[in-house]
Amino acid sequence: MPRYKFILEYDGMLYSGFQRQQKAWSVQQALEEAFEKMTHTRITVFAAGRTDAGVHALGQVCHVDLPKPYPPRNILRGINFYLCDERIVVLKVEEVADDFHARFSATARSYEYRILNRLAPPAIDHLRVWHVHVDLDAQAMNDAATVLLGTHDFTTFRARRCQADLSVRTLDQLTVTREGDRILIRAKARSFLHHQVRNMVGSLYWVGVGHWNKDDLQKALEAQDRTRGGQTAPPHGLYLTHIDYP
Amino acid sequence: MPRYKFILEYDGMLYSGFQRQQKAWSVQQALEEAFEKMTHTRITVFAAGRTDAGVHALGQVCHVDLPKPYPPRNILRGINFYLCDERIVVLKVEEVADDFHARFSATARSYEYRILNRLAPPAIDHLRVWHVHVDLDAQAMNDAATVLLGTHDFTTFRARRCQADLSVRTLDQLTVTREGDRILIRAKARSFLHHQVRNMVGSLYWVGVGHWNKDDLQKALEAQDRTRGGQTAPPHGLYLTHIDYP
Repeated sequence: MPRYKFILEYDGMLYSGFQRQQKAWSVQQALEEAFEKMTHTRITVFAAGRTDAGVHALGQVCHVDLPKPYPPRNILRGINFYLCDERIVVLKVEEVADDFHARFSATARSYEYRILNRLAPPAIDHLRVWHVHVDLDAQAMNDAATVLLGTHDFTTFRARRCQADLSVRTLDQLTVTREGDRILIRAKARSFLHHQVRNMVGSLYWVGVGHWNKDDLQKALEAQDRTRGGQTAPPHGLYLTHIDYP
Repeated sequence: MPRYKFILEYDGMLYSGFQRQQKAWSVQQALEEAFEKMTHTRITVFAAGRTDAGVHALGQVCHVDLPKPYPPRNILRGINFYLCDERIVVLKVEEVADDFHARFSATARSYEYRILNRLAPPAIDHLRVWHVHVDLDAQAMNDAATVLLGTHDFTTFRARRCQADLSVRTLDQLTVTREGDRILIRAKARSFLHHQVRNMVGSLYWVGVGHWNKDDLQKALEAQDRTRGGQTAPPHGLYLTHIDYP
C-alpha cells in the first residue's frame, strides 16, 4: 500500500479540532470521508499535530496509506474537490517511504500566534486573530520570552488534561515581533505539551501589559504549577505553520 | 453641528456595497442605524468611495454631522458597540472643519487587489482573495501595467453602467508584486471609474497568463472600447486601502 504525505491548510473555527470525535465535526473526519469517496475504501489519516478546536493550520502534515498508487496531483485535485464545502485544502502531496510517519517522524513543530493590538476589533480578521485592545510592549514580551528557551519542565504552561508522560520539553524558538498593529509570536520545538503555546502566549500577554516582568515569568516557570501561569490565549489566534522532517 | 471624519474597515462579502439600497443590506445603512442609536437622530453618512458588493475596505473614510459634540474616542467605542453584530469597525475618529467632505475633499484613492496564485483554493482566505490556479508572471504584469499610468481615456476599463460624465482619469500608481503565492496589485488615482480597478486587474490577468503582452494592453487602452478589455476581476479580491486629503 503506497504511503502519501500531504500538507494541509484549514480554518480551525469550523471544526472541533483535528481529531475525530463521536459527536462533533473534525478535520480528520472531513478528510477521511473525502479519501473514502475518492478510493471507495476506509482510510485513516495520521497528523503531525492534533490541533484543538478553533486552532488554524497553514502547514499541517498528514499521511495516509492508499489501496493503490495515485499520481500526487490527482490526490490533491480529488481530495480538494471532495472538500469543496469545507474550509480545508490540500496544498501539496508526495509519495513517501513506508517508514515515514507524519507524527513520529517529525523533528520540529512551528506555530505562529497572531494578536491584533488596537482599540477597534477586527472586521476582516474576525476569529483569525486575538484582539487585544490595551497597548502591548512587544519588545518586553520578546525579551522575557528568552527565559522559556531551552529545556525545562513546562508544567506551568501545561493543560491540566494534558496526557503526555513527561512535562519536560525543549523550546527552540520563542520570539515576539510587532508589524504595525499586529503582534506575531513564533514558537518552535520538537513537540509541545497540550495548550503549551497558548499558555505561554497568555503569560507573555501579562508581560506585554506590564503586569509581569521577565523575573515574574522566570518564577512562574520555576514554580512548575499551572495556577502560577497566565491565562490560556484563545485558540483562534493560533496557527500551526510548519512541520520539520529529517 | 460638529463634523467628524472617521476611518472604517469592513468585510465586503456581507454587504451589497457601501451605498444604501431599498432591498439589500449595505454598509451605509448599518452605519446610519448605529449613529441613530447613539444620537437618537437621523444621521447621513458620506463616504470617500462607494465600494461595490463584495469589495472590502481597510481604510474607507466617511464623515457625519452630529447634533452635538462627542469626544472622538466615545464615538469610536459607541459606534463599534452598536456594530458588534456587523463586520464593520471604526478605526479612528477626529473632528474636522465644516468644509471637509469625505468624498469631495479627497485628493487620491488607493486600492489593493489580492490574488492567491496556487493550485489549491484558499481555506483561511476564502472570499478574501481571488484564487487563480494557473501560474501568473507577475513581472510581465508589472511591466505591462506601466502603459496605463498617466492621463488616458479609460473607456476600455469602465463598467457600462458607470455614471461619470468623463471617462478620462489620471492613474498615479499601478504596480504588481509577488510575495510567495500572493500577487498584490496596487492602484492609486485621484478617482476611478466604476469597476476600473477590477477591469484593469482582469486585463493584467491576461498578461499574467501569457494571453496578452504589453502591446496588446496598449492597443486595448487605445481602442476606448469595453469589449476590447479583459474580464472584470471578482470583487472579493479588492480592498480600498487609503484615502488622501490635503
